[in-house]
Amino acid sequence: MGMALGNAFDRPESSLYLGIDPGLNRTGYAIIRRTPQRPLLVEGGVIKSTKDKTLAERVLEIGQGISEVIAEFEPEAVAIEQIFSMTRNPKTAVLMAHARGAILFAAAQAAIPIVHYTPRQIKKLLSGNGAASKEQVQHAVQRELGLKKILEPNDVADASAIALCHYYSSRVDINVSQPCPVI
Amino acid sequence: MGMALGNAFDRPESSLYLGIDPGLNRTGYAIIRRTPQRPLLVEGGVIKSTKDKTLAERVLEIGQGISEVIAEFEPEAVAIEQIFSMTRNPKTAVLMAHARGAILFAAAQAAIPIVHYTPRQIKKLLSGNGAASKEQVQHAVQRELGLKKILEPNDVADASAIALCHYYSSRVDINVSQPCPVI
Repeated sequence: MGMALGNAFDRPESSLYLGIDPGLNRTGYAIIRRTPQRPLLVEGGVIKSTKDKTLAERVLEIGQGISEVIAEFEPEAVAIEQIFSMTRNPKTAVLMAHARGAILFAAAQAAIPIVHYTPRQIKKLLSGNGAASKEQVQHAVQRELGLKKILEPNDVADASAIALCHYYSSRVDINVSQPCPVI
Repeated sequence: MGMALGNAFDRPESSLYLGIDPGLNRTGYAIIRRTPQRPLLVEGGVIKSTKDKTLAERVLEIGQGISEVIAEFEPEAVAIEQIFSMTRNPKTAVLMAHARGAILFAAAQAAIPIVHYTPRQIKKLLSGNGAASKEQVQHAVQRELGLKKILEPNDVADASAIALCHYYSSRVDINVSQPCPVI
């Protein structure tokens, strides 16, 4: 495994992955670094939009925030959660999709590969159970990153879970870079 | 006429409005110029995304296309249709919202004011009837722009209708620049 990993390092990439938990009000992000030992949390944060601004201004705040994170860390890849349910709250899904569109645009402008994971894939990979609870995922994130306590706020824990999902998926050579025309 | 135009408006704005009919597959746009006589169609077109590309790549194609139109024409304002129905086809609405997010991000990056109109407002303003048929709107667009025939493709006619809605709304000083946090 060390050998395979070593080979994987024979490239100029930054070994950093950006995980994003997208939302119009709050978009969580986490930067995870690949190391020979374990994944390390380099930075996590929340980009908030201003509630009384226009939709376009809010989308700009989220998109620019992500652009800045990408410019600062130059991650190898961006991992983002797929929208899983449009029926539960269609209005929320559509507002979130606006933020997601700006985030994808910002990442694509920077020419960073973007991978999508379903919540089920993320839960399954981290906890072994595709229907894991939020708490189980939080504990898995804490364990994988070697943290002393639960990562908070939850947006950052979710973003870390997505980044970790890509970290492990790309390690085992799962091809996740398929065209993803569906959401 | 150029002189009269300068005197009549006495401002540095371009007197151009960009109307956008957003979609992930096809985004129609139209540039309308304000003149003392009547609105003129300066340019119309469709930005298409490549169907077998990833969602991020498609969103990039749409957003960059709009960025290029904005850079070329420097419109005073961007007018865009509000999403009217999320329940009819939630998946389409969410995909369209991704495109719309990239479009709003592109326009906001260029610091162009963005105004939103509902299909009902557009129909009402152009034809006097908020429930006008597609054909009635197409004829109203043809009439207002002084065209010899119906404007095609329909995406461009719809984009022109949105630009015309803003043209007439801003002429009569309707305040349409309210914060629009809802879609």
